[in-house]
Amino acid sequence: MTNMKDVAQEAGVSLGSVSNYLNEKKIRPDAEERIKNAIKKLHYVRNNAARDLRTNGSSYVVFVLPTVWTPYFSELTFWIQKELDHYGYKAILCLSENEYEQEKGFVDMAEEQRVAGIISVSYSNLTSHVHSDIPLVSIEKEDTGLFPLVSSDNYSGGEIAAAELKKRQADKFLFIGADHISSTAMTARKSGFVDYCNRNGMKYTIDKVPSTHHQEEFDIQIKKIVDNIAGSKYQYRNLGIFSYTDEVALSLYKELLRRNIKIPEEVQIVGFDGWKLSQDQQLSISSIRQPVKDIAVNAVKQLDKRVNRESTQDVPRIMLPVTFLQGDTTKTI
Amino acid sequence: MTNMKDVAQEAGVSLGSVSNYLNEKKIRPDAEERIKNAIKKLHYVRNNAARDLRTNGSSYVVFVLPTVWTPYFSELTFWIQKELDHYGYKAILCLSENEYEQEKGFVDMAEEQRVAGIISVSYSNLTSHVHSDIPLVSIEKEDTGLFPLVSSDNYSGGEIAAAELKKRQADKFLFIGADHISSTAMTARKSGFVDYCNRNGMKYTIDKVPSTHHQEEFDIQIKKIVDNIAGSKYQYRNLGIFSYTDEVALSLYKELLRRNIKIPEEVQIVGFDGWKLSQDQQLSISSIRQPVKDIAVNAVKQLDKRVNRESTQDVPRIMLPVTFLQGDTTKTI
Repeated sequence: MTNMKDVAQEAGVSLGSVSNYLNEKKIRPDAEERIKNAIKKLHYVRNNAARDLRTNGSSYVVFVLPTVWTPYFSELTFWIQKELDHYGYKAILCLSENEYEQEKGFVDMAEEQRVAGIISVSYSNLTSHVHSDIPLVSIEKEDTGLFPLVSSDNYSGGEIAAAELKKRQADKFLFIGADHISSTAMTARKSGFVDYCNRNGMKYTIDKVPSTHHQEEFDIQIKKIVDNIAGSKYQYRNLGIFSYTDEVALSLYKELLRRNIKIPEEVQIVGFDGWKLSQDQQLSISSIRQPVKDIAVNAVKQLDKRVNRESTQDVPRIMLPVTFLQGDTTKTI
Repeated sequence: MTNMKDVAQEAGVSLGSVSNYLNEKKIRPDAEERIKNAIKKLHYVRNNAARDLRTNGSSYVVFVLPTVWTPYFSELTFWIQKELDHYGYKAILCLSENEYEQEKGFVDMAEEQRVAGIISVSYSNLTSHVHSDIPLVSIEKEDTGLFPLVSSDNYSGGEIAAAELKKRQADKFLFIGADHISSTAMTARKSGFVDYCNRNGMKYTIDKVPSTHHQEEFDIQIKKIVDNIAGSKYQYRNLGIFSYTDEVALSLYKELLRRNIKIPEEVQIVGFDGWKLSQDQQLSISSIRQPVKDIAVNAVKQLDKRVNRESTQDVPRIMLPVTFLQGDTTKTI
């Protein structure tokens, strides 16, 4: 690889002159000309990695998330990268598949490589093992209280789902949650829904599905729930379903259609996330939409503050409002 | 930041002993014990960024692509990251939004930071501006012949689409392409379709839509195409449509349903990509499925070969087979 010494030799000037030129200090015009030509001829590019180390100003940010392969996470990754780019950071993508050991490996790597900071979406207790002197911002969950948290207002999302279904003449309600993930976000969605139902005298039941990573069990359970709905148990006319993710809502929707249950005339469904397949295409599921861009904007802003050692005293918990997104699975009013 | 000197001082040993310990050379057991304790006490982490520079072995790979926010690109990113991780590389994510200046900026950054290599999905002439001594692998398009290319067999994808529609009793055919992107991949999809039709005496027409980034024009054009189909022009019974992407196929599908045209009974649609929303959920559009995982596996393998200076002489063009994916928009046979 060409280095400064090669450039100096080619240009017939001292190493100091090349260094001065690269650091934009004044040098003799004829030397400048010769250095420029030498750089061009040798295809010399400055070693920024070395410079970053000397100035201790790495511009890499590690972004840890379970996967990039769902519409919610791909949209979040899109905005996080865009925001990091805006601040001059580069995103190192680390997909953990919700495995704690993977996450820990990424954090160790981040510490070893002395990156500028970490943004993480983790459902394990990742933050409890991170040194608090490394700039880190959590999205959705952070239990230690040591790092800033940016999250959607999941509780009010549950309330909104119940309210919107009630407005559309649903007279019995069903919440579908997960049977093993017990994350704060999921719990808040459920509590918001259940509390709203209780406050307003609305009759509800609760059902559970396994994580979609156990595809077979998941499919069986979706069929079982739809059996219950189609059978006598819920008397499905005017049933309003709130599902804790769009992924589950979509599976329910397909299975209900297969049984010839009319949506939204007989059964209405509200998901959570507000999946958009791309910048211009949304899913047909009615949903509680997360403010994905705002989450990214706030997370990167908080991270940058901590990198620059502004306000490391306060540890903000930022809760962003969610909105109802009308799709094809709820009645129009 | 704690350095080796601090560790030596804390442990009461020489700098050389610490260095030997870190490089796994033999040292006295009591010194080893004291160094271990000092490292623990001071939270010392080894500066791998510095070590990478010394050994000239950066483990960062820049992954340039237009966006991560469509199911195809998010799946591709998922597998690329997984494969890079498998080889011990870290993925730096760079989203270009198809803008040449952005792409060029990422390549300059990659050269300056002396990353291990670049994997790019670029629809501009990016590769013509990259030094051929930086390891780079292109996905889908590479016109210079200087870098390895990994791509789906787009031409045979077009042929398969035509053949599958014919098998399902379509007796007139429509290809929907893009009006300004003239990428090699898109052209190949169209040629495969058209050539198959011509070889088999199948009657076809061709229509175009603007890029989805011009949402309003795009929607107008989709409506116009569906007007033509619903009106007399095509006599839509037994029409088989092949659309150059799933994104366009999905928009057509929704608009046709809105006009009460029965799918797949009256009109059948085949898209391209085979979008999966997540690892477990596929879209309902019948499609020509790209071998996304295989693309990633091959791209990373080729990159690693070039990083390790194996086989820089030959520049492989790897063409991977595509398959037909039955969804709800073609008849079952």
